[in-house]
Amino acid sequence: MYEALMKSMLQQYGADTLKGIHHFIPDKEPRKYLYNLVHDYPNRGGKGFRPSLCIASCKTYGGSLDDALYSAVSLELLHNAFLIHDDVEDESLFRRNKPTMHEYSNKAIAINVGDAMNVLGLYPLFMNKEKLGQKISQQIFLEIQHMVTESVEGQALELGWRKDNISDLNDSDYLRMILKKTCWYTCMHPLRIGAIIGSRGKVKPDIFNRLGYFMGTAFQIQDDILNLVAEEKKYGKEIGGDILEGKRTLMLIHLLQKSKATEKNGIRKFLSLPIRERQNEKAAWILNLMQQHGSIVHAKNTARYMAGAALKEYYTIFSRLPDCKDKSFIESIILYMINRDY
Amino acid sequence: MYEALMKSMLQQYGADTLKGIHHFIPDKEPRKYLYNLVHDYPNRGGKGFRPSLCIASCKTYGGSLDDALYSAVSLELLHNAFLIHDDVEDESLFRRNKPTMHEYSNKAIAINVGDAMNVLGLYPLFMNKEKLGQKISQQIFLEIQHMVTESVEGQALELGWRKDNISDLNDSDYLRMILKKTCWYTCMHPLRIGAIIGSRGKVKPDIFNRLGYFMGTAFQIQDDILNLVAEEKKYGKEIGGDILEGKRTLMLIHLLQKSKATEKNGIRKFLSLPIRERQNEKAAWILNLMQQHGSIVHAKNTARYMAGAALKEYYTIFSRLPDCKDKSFIESIILYMINRDY
Repeated sequence: MYEALMKSMLQQYGADTLKGIHHFIPDKEPRKYLYNLVHDYPNRGGKGFRPSLCIASCKTYGGSLDDALYSAVSLELLHNAFLIHDDVEDESLFRRNKPTMHEYSNKAIAINVGDAMNVLGLYPLFMNKEKLGQKISQQIFLEIQHMVTESVEGQALELGWRKDNISDLNDSDYLRMILKKTCWYTCMHPLRIGAIIGSRGKVKPDIFNRLGYFMGTAFQIQDDILNLVAEEKKYGKEIGGDILEGKRTLMLIHLLQKSKATEKNGIRKFLSLPIRERQNEKAAWILNLMQQHGSIVHAKNTARYMAGAALKEYYTIFSRLPDCKDKSFIESIILYMINRDY
Repeated sequence: MYEALMKSMLQQYGADTLKGIHHFIPDKEPRKYLYNLVHDYPNRGGKGFRPSLCIASCKTYGGSLDDALYSAVSLELLHNAFLIHDDVEDESLFRRNKPTMHEYSNKAIAINVGDAMNVLGLYPLFMNKEKLGQKISQQIFLEIQHMVTESVEGQALELGWRKDNISDLNDSDYLRMILKKTCWYTCMHPLRIGAIIGSRGKVKPDIFNRLGYFMGTAFQIQDDILNLVAEEKKYGKEIGGDILEGKRTLMLIHLLQKSKATEKNGIRKFLSLPIRERQNEKAAWILNLMQQHGSIVHAKNTARYMAGAALKEYYTIFSRLPDCKDKSFIESIILYMINRDY
């Protein structure tokens, strides 16, 4: 039941947001090297998770789809800008079942397209003023500013760990990184911004921080697990790509803690190679070690624990609000995370 | 005389801006992979051209240094963000006599630092409100938004030409690209923003477009000539680096038009190679061809023509305003461009 609700709402709000995105991408030159490419990632049909959460939060607090739409569009444009740069930074090959932008174009052009989307993402925020007034639209601008700042800080941690081949990390390091890189912009800010709009500034947005943190960590850990265990087509990226990229996932961090000295040396050696020289066989060996040492089970348990904590927070915040489809949608995401069996 | 004035004013306003920049860079973690790096390019001591022009324009129209400072800081932060990404995109080796950021760190981290500076550049714009009020600060925000949009469009043209090894360009193509990539953010918007602030919104900013365009093209063409003829240490980048990078300068475009078929084929073949496989000897051969075919003389003439046109525009706009040091400073930049003998 909740799964069908979740999927239909994601689809609906995702489509509304995509229509809004098209409205904000200029229909002008330079097309070939810029604006056609700006359409690419949004058109690949992502989950629409962030804009949907923002719209649902807004409606639960008494606002309308229309009130939240510009902010949802901004969230999704900035998210896709982030993905393009993230793909370049990670040298990823696939995104949503297609070659990444820098793979079919080149890195220079992909970086510039991301930069363009970052500035395009500001236009809808400026337009917010007309619908929501000066005060609320400025508050949302500050939220977005904070969101992007947290994301680049989290990204800096992760990229730094890879660059210097750091291998003495623990769960807390991981959670702090993911709080910054993922949670703020995937859950905390969408919930916050939606509620600010819906309540016309009456709700204190900090009440969503714990909920967004728990949801975001569950979301990210599950996404990382899928990268290891999902079918390629369903997942849309190369399976085990995270291992090849040297991404510091909860599983890799767990494995580095639990593995024997010789294993750890082998993993470190693998990670010290340039990304395109890392062999698939070695990645498969590391995946196997993760299974042996219980790293994937540990990650699944952590994700489920976080999703449980999110559900508790959800009830604390939302039980006092009248029932509605949008409120149930937010709950459905958490239930889906709890019951997921990969 | 004008040269001494120009240099002392650039130094003074550059230093004021740098102090402002330091104020806006957070003194917190993650330092090693982010905030320490954010300081790097601004601290290398660029010309401070954009913020100085903005401050001088503001003061000429009756404003103060303090009125323009946040906008100047924003311009300089965004400019340095652009340089970091530009260096990655061009695979440049040196910037201001030091290795580029992606060379001493890595590309992933450099891209992320640029992203961080793009969002940091928004903070001072938000602070403008306190000094300049809602209306003017919003107008400046729109100016900056437009400026960044033009820059990424110009960058897209240039990167696209390189990617597809386009070699049938003419002077108009070049000027359109440079209008977008350089003129708006180097001259037009600094002048516009300064005047909006100084006149408290009374001046129509479009009056600066021709002046800024002429100044900007003279500036860019001269910078590209320096890349070919300057001493390495004085210039701060590798000499002839533009040829190795395949940059579509006015000289290269001229050469491709004027060279014989066999020469043109040789140049095209050189440009079709991956950047690190292009040989220095071949670049020297192309430089030699540019000299033979008068490409550098053509560029010098064009730059001087543009600087002359800028001077005419300058007098049209500024002769009705009272004399002051800041007004003379703007004139001194143009005079310097006209009289430059490399």
